[in-house]
Amino acid sequence: METQLSNADADSLQRLLNLSLGAKENTAKIVNGSRSANSTNPQYQPLDIEFVEKILNYKFKDKSLLLQAFTDATFDENCVSYERLEFLGDTVLNMVITKYLYNRYGDCSPGLLTNLRAVNVDTEKLARVAVKHNLHRCLRHKKPLLEDQILEFTKAMETYPLHSRGLLKVPKSLADIVESTIGALYTDCDSFETVWKVVMPLLEPIISLDKLENHPMTELHEMCQKKNLKLRFDDSTWEVDKRVLVFIEDKLVGRGHHLAKKDSAKNCAAKDALDNFSYFFTKI
Amino acid sequence: METQLSNADADSLQRLLNLSLGAKENTAKIVNGSRSANSTNPQYQPLDIEFVEKILNYKFKDKSLLLQAFTDATFDENCVSYERLEFLGDTVLNMVITKYLYNRYGDCSPGLLTNLRAVNVDTEKLARVAVKHNLHRCLRHKKPLLEDQILEFTKAMETYPLHSRGLLKVPKSLADIVESTIGALYTDCDSFETVWKVVMPLLEPIISLDKLENHPMTELHEMCQKKNLKLRFDDSTWEVDKRVLVFIEDKLVGRGHHLAKKDSAKNCAAKDALDNFSYFFTKI
Repeated sequence: METQLSNADADSLQRLLNLSLGAKENTAKIVNGSRSANSTNPQYQPLDIEFVEKILNYKFKDKSLLLQAFTDATFDENCVSYERLEFLGDTVLNMVITKYLYNRYGDCSPGLLTNLRAVNVDTEKLARVAVKHNLHRCLRHKKPLLEDQILEFTKAMETYPLHSRGLLKVPKSLADIVESTIGALYTDCDSFETVWKVVMPLLEPIISLDKLENHPMTELHEMCQKKNLKLRFDDSTWEVDKRVLVFIEDKLVGRGHHLAKKDSAKNCAAKDALDNFSYFFTKI
Repeated sequence: METQLSNADADSLQRLLNLSLGAKENTAKIVNGSRSANSTNPQYQPLDIEFVEKILNYKFKDKSLLLQAFTDATFDENCVSYERLEFLGDTVLNMVITKYLYNRYGDCSPGLLTNLRAVNVDTEKLARVAVKHNLHRCLRHKKPLLEDQILEFTKAMETYPLHSRGLLKVPKSLADIVESTIGALYTDCDSFETVWKVVMPLLEPIISLDKLENHPMTELHEMCQKKNLKLRFDDSTWEVDKRVLVFIEDKLVGRGHHLAKKDSAKNCAAKDALDNFSYFFTKI
């Protein structure tokens, strides 16, 4: 059986399980990778190690790392949560994608490389990775609203096949478990080559330079330039009302709203302006 | 001779030199690592490759990488500047220091690890590395004010032996060349182990957890808690005047000012409050 453990693995897993579940009777079920028959809600299910290993196409030497990677701090008072692995995994992911982009785009400026990296490893992109590959089903948590938020995000994703650029509400835990999984993987294999081999297929489609340029801000700028129209963003009141306005030829054509990031509010405003454009400028 | 080049190395270096200096006659001087006798100002001197290799205790296979690492975009219109190597080196540095801290502090929370990493790789820390190890003497640039700024920073460093936490004005180019050197090093050796072996001695003293906790904000918080005094930071007008105020028992005890970062303004205010404390609270 694929998920069978060595004695050492089983010992370390047992210790973690005792901590994180507070109930020895759950151990056999989890080690065997079976799911609870009494619940369809993933938050109450034990971790199916074999399921995760199949997604990753990688067998862990230390299975307890995986358990840690999928355990949110809310799951149990004494659990070992994914936070430290997430911290490590975030840096490992940054490293492997930086190397990839640096080599792939030999002439690209550091500014563009930074944007390109950001859009391939940001919260939304990683949350998409979690959902697309069903990793979200393994997250062990007790956050009361999270399952609904995940469902909402999963539906909304369909509207933006590649990336919404801050237009969607993203449950951060989804991105966290992708990072913690990468942290667990790196700890287990200690090889950036292996990490990249496992992670690259998960990140696909990796957003390339030509796709990067095709986002609302760029599209709006290009369109206005082509049609020789004066474009102006007004973000002067964002600190107060979290809104950004877009004016084309001094007509208010778009509004964007974002509580945390001015750039996201700008992106929303640009998208709104693109959607409204034909209404305001029918003859152009 | 230590800096002798292979034919392939010399070819690639020659191409870079032609681009970056626009004068073939400088080539021999630079490849031999000698300095210009007519100038004491580092910005006009060619790169002394042997000098840098001695600092790093590492011999480059591809010497042209080092030339790139120390060339600012202002140096020559057509030069290949350090910006791309800096982008790569920043991530490599983050990776090696993350791994080191993650393993050294097995029980440390991700929040503390993040702060600990930041203070060991931020602009000030890296600028200190450049000055301490004389890497700043190799920077090739034509920024009119930079040499004076470096001199000012070098003098001011003495006031804060370890780290000022945003109290000093730091010439960013100094940090840039440490990152670009790490980028060059990683490109040359393709080994994180080698990078860490070279970089760790440069970063020493690496700021440890106990040193991290001894900074103005923490010190002020701890002191007020011990003496049972009400402490309040007022950063409500930072967006307007870039100032943060500190009140202890509703007395204005400290002010901090920083144009770019609210946290640095807060640190300055905390330091000011600590300095002024005995004046306001003589009997405590």
